[in-house]
Amino acid sequence: MYDRIKGFRDFYPGEMAARRATIDTLEDTARGYGFREIGTPALERAEMWTDKSGDDIVEELYSFEDQGGRHVTLTPELTPTVARMVVAKQQELSKPIKWFSTRPFWRYEQVQQGRQREFYQTNVDIFGSSEPEADAEILAWAADALTNLGLTDEHFEFRISHRDILGGVLETYDADVDIDDAIRAVDKSDKLSTAEYHDLLIGAGLTSEQAVEFDDLVAGGDLEAVRAFADTDRVDAAVDNLQHVLEAADDFGAREYCTISLETARGLDYYTGVVFECFDSAGEVSRSIFGGGRYDDLIESFGGQPTPAVGVAPGHATLALLCQRAGVWPDEEVTTDYYVLQIGDTRTEAARITRELRERGHVVETDVAGRSFGSQLNYADSINAETVVIAGEQDLANDEVTIKDMNSGDQMQVPVEEFPGEYERPTFADFDS
Amino acid sequence: MYDRIKGFRDFYPGEMAARRATIDTLEDTARGYGFREIGTPALERAEMWTDKSGDDIVEELYSFEDQGGRHVTLTPELTPTVARMVVAKQQELSKPIKWFSTRPFWRYEQVQQGRQREFYQTNVDIFGSSEPEADAEILAWAADALTNLGLTDEHFEFRISHRDILGGVLETYDADVDIDDAIRAVDKSDKLSTAEYHDLLIGAGLTSEQAVEFDDLVAGGDLEAVRAFADTDRVDAAVDNLQHVLEAADDFGAREYCTISLETARGLDYYTGVVFECFDSAGEVSRSIFGGGRYDDLIESFGGQPTPAVGVAPGHATLALLCQRAGVWPDEEVTTDYYVLQIGDTRTEAARITRELRERGHVVETDVAGRSFGSQLNYADSINAETVVIAGEQDLANDEVTIKDMNSGDQMQVPVEEFPGEYERPTFADFDS
Repeated sequence: MYDRIKGFRDFYPGEMAARRATIDTLEDTARGYGFREIGTPALERAEMWTDKSGDDIVEELYSFEDQGGRHVTLTPELTPTVARMVVAKQQELSKPIKWFSTRPFWRYEQVQQGRQREFYQTNVDIFGSSEPEADAEILAWAADALTNLGLTDEHFEFRISHRDILGGVLETYDADVDIDDAIRAVDKSDKLSTAEYHDLLIGAGLTSEQAVEFDDLVAGGDLEAVRAFADTDRVDAAVDNLQHVLEAADDFGAREYCTISLETARGLDYYTGVVFECFDSAGEVSRSIFGGGRYDDLIESFGGQPTPAVGVAPGHATLALLCQRAGVWPDEEVTTDYYVLQIGDTRTEAARITRELRERGHVVETDVAGRSFGSQLNYADSINAETVVIAGEQDLANDEVTIKDMNSGDQMQVPVEEFPGEYERPTFADFDS
Repeated sequence: MYDRIKGFRDFYPGEMAARRATIDTLEDTARGYGFREIGTPALERAEMWTDKSGDDIVEELYSFEDQGGRHVTLTPELTPTVARMVVAKQQELSKPIKWFSTRPFWRYEQVQQGRQREFYQTNVDIFGSSEPEADAEILAWAADALTNLGLTDEHFEFRISHRDILGGVLETYDADVDIDDAIRAVDKSDKLSTAEYHDLLIGAGLTSEQAVEFDDLVAGGDLEAVRAFADTDRVDAAVDNLQHVLEAADDFGAREYCTISLETARGLDYYTGVVFECFDSAGEVSRSIFGGGRYDDLIESFGGQPTPAVGVAPGHATLALLCQRAGVWPDEEVTTDYYVLQIGDTRTEAARITRELRERGHVVETDVAGRSFGSQLNYADSINAETVVIAGEQDLANDEVTIKDMNSGDQMQVPVEEFPGEYERPTFADFDS
């Protein structure tokens, strides 16, 4: 009767279990690094985006006027919100501030594979350090999170660069070159033909010879060649910084996943330093899995004290595509340790067994629907119960219950006082002697 | 520069840690019962609410027209969404369907203590059983969840009734009595004076004598007196059902938390059977902490096959108030197992120790901001680090690190190869012999 809104998804238990396992892995890894969870609002003032990006951005937003006349929007990303939160408590918060959170965001855009209008990200950020170790820690967290999911360097790579390398090289050209336009052209270049790419560069103010030269230099990815070509303090500093980040990443265990890739520019204007994107090494997931980088100016632009920042935000839709491609996506099914089956008026004893097993930390269901033996057994099978404990009137009259191993189908009677008795996790095998 | 929207909250790490611990307890308890997590959209078609409740409800909603011309709303509750999801897959889903989820909802209403415009609930529902065991399992989950938080019967009680008791008693009066209005009056009665309450009942069609009589009967809470007064099949069945639910709740361990309270009516029109509300036993949190009940008609009204349903949805704001009042709210602070402090050029060795400790599952931070010894120690203190491992150039030259117990302030040097070495969780005490 009612349908779901386009671009919004329902997650039923099997798929949700796989998603939850993935989110848990990313978050547990973040906790191990001392990142602290925060909670953030779904709605913010739309001005947080329109002030910076212009009113046109509202076409990509779920924005509206609320009952109190506020121009609000469903947040399309986390970064402005955490910037606002840092500014609000900048005196009290001890630096570096290391935060993470997983939640949905919303953008009104074309729905396609790996891109819905409601999408989940785990945002991980460090505020208050301009040192290369902070960039490297973000890379290390991302690498650890992905390897903890079962991915390896055969499955993913981080393509890394520094925003000032492109900017610094471009500013050695004519002053009329629109550097932001040229960087945006580089960011799109892997989706363009060479001719289209060069046309965009020419549109940004390069001559056609310069476009070819610039393309070659960037595609070469040789940091020392870039340093020599530009021969400016800015490019020197950017190359130095990128090299220092890679050295720290080596200490932190993430260097092996990093490939220098000067095309990597990230679309967002607020990046100021090292930028990186995670790609499927095999190229089967064609878009970047996620990206991140340094954004040292954002907090100040939000009215805060100058506060360097670096972060990354894996999106769970593209991450799922990568994990599925790599064969490490968790099984999309529910699991159950015990089903306690009732035959006749055995609820009291079944409830006792159920409660004792739950107190030992197990997932346990019992009948709450007055079903027949066969229906209960079918249901136990549908929830992948490992062991079925059959509490039948006749068995109980003999102070026994029947234990059924759902994998083998084997079953036997055991004394009711031994179930669960002293056993932490009693199964058929414990009694089969 | 930008402010938070009224009624929306930021959760910084300390408070978030306490919230997360609470949410984990509720969810882990639900998992133990075999409830399965689902994921649901933040936006739905506004018609899901206006069709049933009329257009006036939009004043309480964050509803708007999206870029595609859809009339959508930020969901104010989960139940219509799960009903939609059940209808969409009613053939494939094996019954009973047992689902849970924790997420924010949104209502544009007056902000007050324990009530924000963005609020979090853990929804727990069973679909496909009309048996009293299903109602009892919902009560048992709620009781287990609260006791797992550290609450006891001194802190909370479930006031329980059956929707048909009030309805059935009211229909023994004149046919002109507006039963829904009268039930709404009962639902509000604890916030009204007796005169105001009786006026509402009279407004619903009772005479003033009937209002007094009805008030006495309901306040008495004697199920057999109610059965005798009404003397109808409907009230008989309702009293029987409530008694059966309480018997099942006894088997499931939840009976001791239940008080029969015929005033308990729940405001929502879709309840059809047993209804209950959780209250602070000491009365310090004056509003109900949360409520729940049976809603057997909703799925069918959404175009599905008739499917009985029962559920509950603790709200985390009022639950926090109860836990704080009871003194069981988790400490609002972050915890850290180790801080690995660097003095001089010791990053490589500090990174090795950090990584090995993280691999053992600990929360470990090291310097990523190039800070001095004193700043690092202050930071370690601010994150409540239990142990500081000092990797100093001179110590390392002697193949040693210094272990500092942050609680006592004691410290000693230990061989670097023993840290962490074979220890799962090495502390000062392991070396202090």
